[in-house]
Amino acid sequence: MTAGVTENGYRPHLSAAVPTAQPLGMAVVGAGYWGPNLVRNALALPETELRWVCDRDLVRARRVVGEQTPIKVAGDLEEVLADEFVEAVAIATPPATHEELALRCIEAGRHVLIEKPLADSLAAGRRIVEAAARHGVVVHCDHTFCYTPAVQKIRELVVSGEIGTPLYYDSVRVNLGLIQPEVDVFWDLAPHDISILDFVLGDGRELDTVAAQGADPLGVGHPCIGYLALAFDDGLQAHCHLNWLSPTKIRTTIVGGSERMVLWNDLLPTQRLSVFDCGVDLGGDLSPRQRRISYRTGNMVAPALREREALSGVLADFSDAIRSGGSPLTDGEAGLRVLRVLEAAETSCANGGTPVPLRPLAVA
Amino acid sequence: MTAGVTENGYRPHLSAAVPTAQPLGMAVVGAGYWGPNLVRNALALPETELRWVCDRDLVRARRVVGEQTPIKVAGDLEEVLADEFVEAVAIATPPATHEELALRCIEAGRHVLIEKPLADSLAAGRRIVEAAARHGVVVHCDHTFCYTPAVQKIRELVVSGEIGTPLYYDSVRVNLGLIQPEVDVFWDLAPHDISILDFVLGDGRELDTVAAQGADPLGVGHPCIGYLALAFDDGLQAHCHLNWLSPTKIRTTIVGGSERMVLWNDLLPTQRLSVFDCGVDLGGDLSPRQRRISYRTGNMVAPALREREALSGVLADFSDAIRSGGSPLTDGEAGLRVLRVLEAAETSCANGGTPVPLRPLAVA
Amino acid sequence: MTAGVTENGYRPHLSAAVPTAQPLGMAVVGAGYWGPNLVRNALALPETELRWVCDRDLVRARRVVGEQTPIKVAGDLEEVLADEFVEAVAIATPPATHEELALRCIEAGRHVLIEKPLADSLAAGRRIVEAAARHGVVVHCDHTFCYTPAVQKIRELVVSGEIGTPLYYDSVRVNLGLIQPEVDVFWDLAPHDISILDFVLGDGRELDTVAAQGADPLGVGHPCIGYLALAFDDGLQAHCHLNWLSPTKIRTTIVGGSERMVLWNDLLPTQRLSVFDCGVDLGGDLSPRQRRISYRTGNMVAPALREREALSGVLADFSDAIRSGGSPLTDGEAGLRVLRVLEAAETSCANGGTPVPLRPLAVA
Amino acid sequence: MTAGVTENGYRPHLSAAVPTAQPLGMAVVGAGYWGPNLVRNALALPETELRWVCDRDLVRARRVVGEQTPIKVAGDLEEVLADEFVEAVAIATPPATHEELALRCIEAGRHVLIEKPLADSLAAGRRIVEAAARHGVVVHCDHTFCYTPAVQKIRELVVSGEIGTPLYYDSVRVNLGLIQPEVDVFWDLAPHDISILDFVLGDGRELDTVAAQGADPLGVGHPCIGYLALAFDDGLQAHCHLNWLSPTKIRTTIVGGSERMVLWNDLLPTQRLSVFDCGVDLGGDLSPRQRRISYRTGNMVAPALREREALSGVLADFSDAIRSGGSPLTDGEAGLRVLRVLEAAETSCANGGTPVPLRPLAVA
Repeated sequence: MTAGVTENGYRPHLSAAVPTAQPLGMAVVGAGYWGPNLVRNALALPETELRWVCDRDLVRARRVVGEQTPIKVAGDLEEVLADEFVEAVAIATPPATHEELALRCIEAGRHVLIEKPLADSLAAGRRIVEAAARHGVVVHCDHTFCYTPAVQKIRELVVSGEIGTPLYYDSVRVNLGLIQPEVDVFWDLAPHDISILDFVLGDGRELDTVAAQGADPLGVGHPCIGYLALAFDDGLQAHCHLNWLSPTKIRTTIVGGSERMVLWNDLLPTQRLSVFDCGVDLGGDLSPRQRRISYRTGNMVAPALREREALSGVLADFSDAIRSGGSPLTDGEAGLRVLRVLEAAETSCANGGTPVPLRPLAVA
Repeated sequence: MTAGVTENGYRPHLSAAVPTAQPLGMAVVGAGYWGPNLVRNALALPETELRWVCDRDLVRARRVVGEQTPIKVAGDLEEVLADEFVEAVAIATPPATHEELALRCIEAGRHVLIEKPLADSLAAGRRIVEAAARHGVVVHCDHTFCYTPAVQKIRELVVSGEIGTPLYYDSVRVNLGLIQPEVDVFWDLAPHDISILDFVLGDGRELDTVAAQGADPLGVGHPCIGYLALAFDDGLQAHCHLNWLSPTKIRTTIVGGSERMVLWNDLLPTQRLSVFDCGVDLGGDLSPRQRRISYRTGNMVAPALREREALSGVLADFSDAIRSGGSPLTDGEAGLRVLRVLEAAETSCANGGTPVPLRPLAVA
Repeated sequence: MTAGVTENGYRPHLSAAVPTAQPLGMAVVGAGYWGPNLVRNALALPETELRWVCDRDLVRARRVVGEQTPIKVAGDLEEVLADEFVEAVAIATPPATHEELALRCIEAGRHVLIEKPLADSLAAGRRIVEAAARHGVVVHCDHTFCYTPAVQKIRELVVSGEIGTPLYYDSVRVNLGLIQPEVDVFWDLAPHDISILDFVLGDGRELDTVAAQGADPLGVGHPCIGYLALAFDDGLQAHCHLNWLSPTKIRTTIVGGSERMVLWNDLLPTQRLSVFDCGVDLGGDLSPRQRRISYRTGNMVAPALREREALSGVLADFSDAIRSGGSPLTDGEAGLRVLRVLEAAETSCANGGTPVPLRPLAVA
Repeated sequence: MTAGVTENGYRPHLSAAVPTAQPLGMAVVGAGYWGPNLVRNALALPETELRWVCDRDLVRARRVVGEQTPIKVAGDLEEVLADEFVEAVAIATPPATHEELALRCIEAGRHVLIEKPLADSLAAGRRIVEAAARHGVVVHCDHTFCYTPAVQKIRELVVSGEIGTPLYYDSVRVNLGLIQPEVDVFWDLAPHDISILDFVLGDGRELDTVAAQGADPLGVGHPCIGYLALAFDDGLQAHCHLNWLSPTKIRTTIVGGSERMVLWNDLLPTQRLSVFDCGVDLGGDLSPRQRRISYRTGNMVAPALREREALSGVLADFSDAIRSGGSPLTDGEAGLRVLRVLEAAETSCANGGTPVPLRPLAVA
């Protein structure tokens, strides 16, 4: 599923071979919540040269870059695309606008980095990916968490076999104060968990069923609380709790394995990962009645993790993919895999939680 | 649903009127995991006089009470029931044995306190409750958590209206090391959450749909990981995560309300309850587009809670119900309401999580 | 000690009376660790207009403000002082340089905001304060913590009498990774605690004795671990643990009172303050033998605190003091009170912890 | 100092050679707070046979053992000592009574296990130890913490060299609700920390200076808050914070080493010990000015610890010492080393914290 990547999930960097690469000329579209983070990282990274910030609200765009700066602001994308030194565009606007903006960039021959979710429907996402294929440009879906040291380490623990056979995945992503008027809690928060799950557990297995429960107790018009149950084709199950109405912020994921279990608490900066050397032995081939179940509880190790801003890694990988002709870690297809789950979740949710099978993704 | 109880959930005690009541002559059947706790509390409480401990394994029964004691041990229930001073029997054996043992006691005119779940099927539970009605004895189902100061306080916050309109209920009850060979994780752990939910939120609403996802990644023969989604008839939703394979113990419940939200962390003895004065204002009658959602975050209060062993309250309530002719807080019908959910969960789980409607309980 | 301030510690703002005040023309000297924070806040605040960043290392100064900016950089203070629009200078250089730099600014008629500690000796600090008095300019010592919502709230709880009679103050400020080659752990970390203590408890009492224990287990040449015991003239005692060699970061302060006790955990953003409604009743006038000590443990309240960057409040107060002709919350004398304790701690430490009385501060 | 013990601190058990040893006939004197714990463990351990519980308050003694039991109760020690099958007596009475009771037992040829502190003065403690030597009986001072898996593991990490050179020891032992009318906070709580320190770090070094700060803000008549600074003869320093007036319970000890640092949080049952692979490199032989200090932060390991009641280990070691003719881990001399520090702390405290040198212990 994520073929060609190494254990920690990155493609072997080719940049060593192209040390004198020109910095990537870039524009950022959208100066709302996420755009400023893209701007800050693009400014700091030697591999990128930020040239434009584009937003329909020019005042907002201006505020992001300041008064005196060589970076230009634009209210319309055409102005940006007219600049031949812009090779790539990062799109950080509401999902409903992704398709139109991305297609304009792609058709103008520009590489695109698109904020998650890739688009507001699987069909729209597919049109983006297909257009990029036709025009030979890179589509990178910004699944930022896949670039965090914690998630990279979890993938390493899974892929290396250190945790043994994966047994289950459970995540909780809840907080107060994020009710979105235009997207529901699944479309807002689940892309994080689905993309992590895909990255960490997706080698050699495919998701094939989705069941979702949603609640809208305030009458917002769409779910503010969601529970997502996902099953892979080999039987491995995953579950995500997503909630905009929690009085306390929780961001905890457990990846249970037959040899070790990983607890990821993203709100504990000094101990984000706890790797428990614990397990259950069922007593082999005996019948359930005869079995003597035994438990093992050994040391817990909290691995040292670099503190690095994930978004910087996203931009470096984007730039590297463009320069090397490879594809980024979380490419357009990774974005489609997330959209496919979100649409199935919506269907399941509308049917009270009835499980929905996933159809295979067939990208032209 | 729990009519006739006061705000904190207890019936008004009548014992003041009968101060000279004889201690309740009791037997405990089952000297395994829970039995010794019943023995210890029955010994300590002035309202009860423990006379027998009964277990097929006489050595185990003897070990619970010690060598030199006036308390008798028996290998068979008949011996116990032959003692006319035994008025009540507490049954702490595996669920599959509850029906037979309880019916023998009831038919011999004895009151019964039965470990949760009440029985191993709704039909069996119903036979117990109906027999007790015929013989005019008390059936008390030991839903211990309903007697903890934390749960009593949560009920008080809900019933008094302090949390406002209930918005959702979410609980996590996970740990390592409790795989049961004969019951699955739902039958083992969910009775706690279902009974709490019933006690805390059950006034004026009824559960009407259940969807359950289960996983058995070790091949034990039944789910070791479970997710339970419950809907009340007024739309209120609840969710429980139950897991025998978690590397870390978590026991956290959130009850979200329109005015306040309660976080119950049962593993934090110094701050089990946190009551957050927070909420969301959707901006009244405006359309979703026009609304300005606003958030309120005020103080958090951790109420002082008595430290009291819940099981002592269970036995006091049992004794009091018998002496006063009332019914205990968590009576046989409360036990049936739990069984009804467990059976529906089993059905849903077997169908991959398809929601199952609950049929009304009709006790003769 | 901090006369003329209101309960939350701020002077009544006069700025309402002078709404059209010109922004304060400012320079920041020192582009090392703290300087960039001053720059960022001075840029963001409407009350201040940053004109210069000055550092002997011009490259470093330039890096702080960026390439394209109206803010000028200088390698020498003279250039800055030659700009008549510079009314005030913020000095964020090593303590050993404070006196010389501050005196040059003061003699040129400029107000100064000086990073803590005010100077590298009490005598030097005194010369700064006296020069400022002679030239009629403001000296503000940047005791940032006194401007945090948490410390402001603690002062409010003390001054309003809510905690009752203060019983003790205990703080722990430890971490790994901050060994300074030129100052010891007391001069580096204790100014925070001494200034907080002075601000929170200093109304109507004066510190009068200091005992300090220091350890230098790595042979750095000065203490890396320090314990500071402080006594006020009314008997109230305070203690601070300061440590550069702790494997884990701890920032916890307890202010015990006869009616309530406050726990401040600065590393717990969602619950920085916990106010415990607890206390001890000694049983009045009875002799110790006859007394029945009783304990009270009530609710705990975690007050909601604004999230505001303290340094922004520092700059606003500095500007306001200059415009209104008042003095800032943590003025030069507050800086001297800290220096007096640091010097006594050094003496005590050199004598193995023997207590050292504080002499009265007499500022000309 | 604790010669002849193995790395984890226990003498090599000789019991293998004497497998058929008669259980040790025992009495427990004192049925107050700690006595019942001794009774419970003596009853459960095969190596001991509890025969008597002795307390001036016979009702209290009776309550500890129950109504129907072969264990006898006595109001006077003579009755107990008249029983020739009593080989050993555990004394859990107030410290002021230890000397008289212990001497009566010793002179009657009985081994004694004495609750900490060994006595209420060094002189009294010395008389106990000397009498025991004359009569050839074992004196075991119940420093329970030295028998916990956590402290045993810390000693192992120190003695094996895993933490490198010890750099410092810092402990915090604070809580609300334990004001003692007859002993101060040092005599009540510091024996725990001094004995742990002695056990963990005492190999090859001796404590030689004590400085103590005490506070009595409620006017109890003796310190309720204490700070203890201890220096070993090789320069290693230790510090303990002891407090009866803390709103929150904290039991945290850090043992800093040049290679690793250990954090012991006794209130975190699932992660009592955290061993940090961190350290500081000062850059070798360079002068402080030239040095480039570097920091290392590696993984953290939380070692798996058995969950075992420490007091059971105390009784087993006591019995084993008697049967094997050896001496227990925390013998009378360990008790004297603690008393010597407590007396010096009292002197220092009375002198405002002036350091007090420890005189060598010379036991006849």
